[in-house]
Amino acid sequence: MIKVVIIGAGNVAFHLYQSFSQNEQFDVIQVFNRNKAHLDFVNDPKRRISHLEEVKDADLYLVAIKDEAIEEVAKELELKTGIIAHTSGSQPMEVLTKYENHGVFYPLQTFSKNKPVNFKDIPVCLEANSQENLKSLKKIAAQISDKVFEVDSEQRKALHVSAVFVNNFSNHLFALADDYCKKNDLPFEILKPLIKETFSKIETLDPFSAQTGPALRNDQKTISAHLELLDDDKKKIYTILTESIQKLHGKEL
Amino acid sequence: MIKVVIIGAGNVAFHLYQSFSQNEQFDVIQVFNRNKAHLDFVNDPKRRISHLEEVKDADLYLVAIKDEAIEEVAKELELKTGIIAHTSGSQPMEVLTKYENHGVFYPLQTFSKNKPVNFKDIPVCLEANSQENLKSLKKIAAQISDKVFEVDSEQRKALHVSAVFVNNFSNHLFALADDYCKKNDLPFEILKPLIKETFSKIETLDPFSAQTGPALRNDQKTISAHLELLDDDKKKIYTILTESIQKLHGKEL
Repeated sequence: MIKVVIIGAGNVAFHLYQSFSQNEQFDVIQVFNRNKAHLDFVNDPKRRISHLEEVKDADLYLVAIKDEAIEEVAKELELKTGIIAHTSGSQPMEVLTKYENHGVFYPLQTFSKNKPVNFKDIPVCLEANSQENLKSLKKIAAQISDKVFEVDSEQRKALHVSAVFVNNFSNHLFALADDYCKKNDLPFEILKPLIKETFSKIETLDPFSAQTGPALRNDQKTISAHLELLDDDKKKIYTILTESIQKLHGKEL
Repeated sequence: MIKVVIIGAGNVAFHLYQSFSQNEQFDVIQVFNRNKAHLDFVNDPKRRISHLEEVKDADLYLVAIKDEAIEEVAKELELKTGIIAHTSGSQPMEVLTKYENHGVFYPLQTFSKNKPVNFKDIPVCLEANSQENLKSLKKIAAQISDKVFEVDSEQRKALHVSAVFVNNFSNHLFALADDYCKKNDLPFEILKPLIKETFSKIETLDPFSAQTGPALRNDQKTISAHLELLDDDKKKIYTILTESIQKLHGKEL
């Protein structure tokens, strides 16, 4: 069995724990968090640790903590074996250079503790400081995901920004619509088939071809009518995204 | 059988035709478009018409054309029977007051001819100028959709704006990410599980609770790093949506 130590107790750490601990190829021997109270999800209380000095020898150390804390935690750790990898989309691999064997194990997904995920479907983006370490990480990642990619630090940054656009920002557009529906006595439910279709459409069409709406049609009458209904905040977003659609589709005025 | 005439040959008219003509309760006796070449999708060539004077008596006339043309076409028509309804999200019902029996039949969905839809799942938002006409429209709508709502003109406008946010704008965010991935030699495919999860998440969580990301965490370091990577257009969108997330979540700086 491959021995794994998980550093962190946030959303990513939680789901990595679920995935690795349910796989018989792996033994998650420890999960670290400074506050043990956040480690309830670790079945065996003896595997919950709150001091980095307690970390035992393992084959893989996954550092799934806040970006700004990675380098510091890596410094505090004293590892003698295995590979250490962080799970951040935006941190370079080099923050782990203290260790001979290091890399990145970035699962490209949005995680919430209250929403189970199927790790098999989650792209895992790998980087390592040697071909040998990359090979090891690939072997490990392939056990928990069907979608393993080799992605260098620059590409990973680009992916992370893209993820903000497709996930954080589109989710926020749903939140704004939800807010606006509430103000107009409409159930958000009524929009869900449309949201579903928005996602379903890009399974067969590329998003450029899937575009519809008043911005694309350059339907100024509808655009003006919409703007009149919106508060300043939503108006700003509506204007800037309308302009951006027209720019991308070569319909600049 | 309920006799239906469809005015229009765009995406909405096309899918209404598919849905009504496949339902044995209905007989789509005619489909109108000024340019007959766009009526290929109507099986029987004799049912394709290009002059409004050709329109025969029917039980329901569905006007699925550009917003600005609805009133004009209604004026040109000379109907003696049935109910006339337009399918626009943004036009008031009153553009059809020329006729004693009128209303709105607004399917809240994004339509492309090359993407089949299941009309049963599409919310149909109804409005009518009398209780009797509303009842008739409800009976008809219930034959083709499981999701029939009564929505007044003001609410319909609000829904239409919301639809732009959840569909047009989020699709555009995907298009921007696609564009950005291409520039960084990354396959857009790698983002699809994340996009799928974004949508799947709001089936169990409301979008406010589903929010994640650097804006919500107020992770200024990541936000600055992202902004440095983006061109001016994407930078503007990134900034404004980040601010809006922080505002909605009470994290204004």
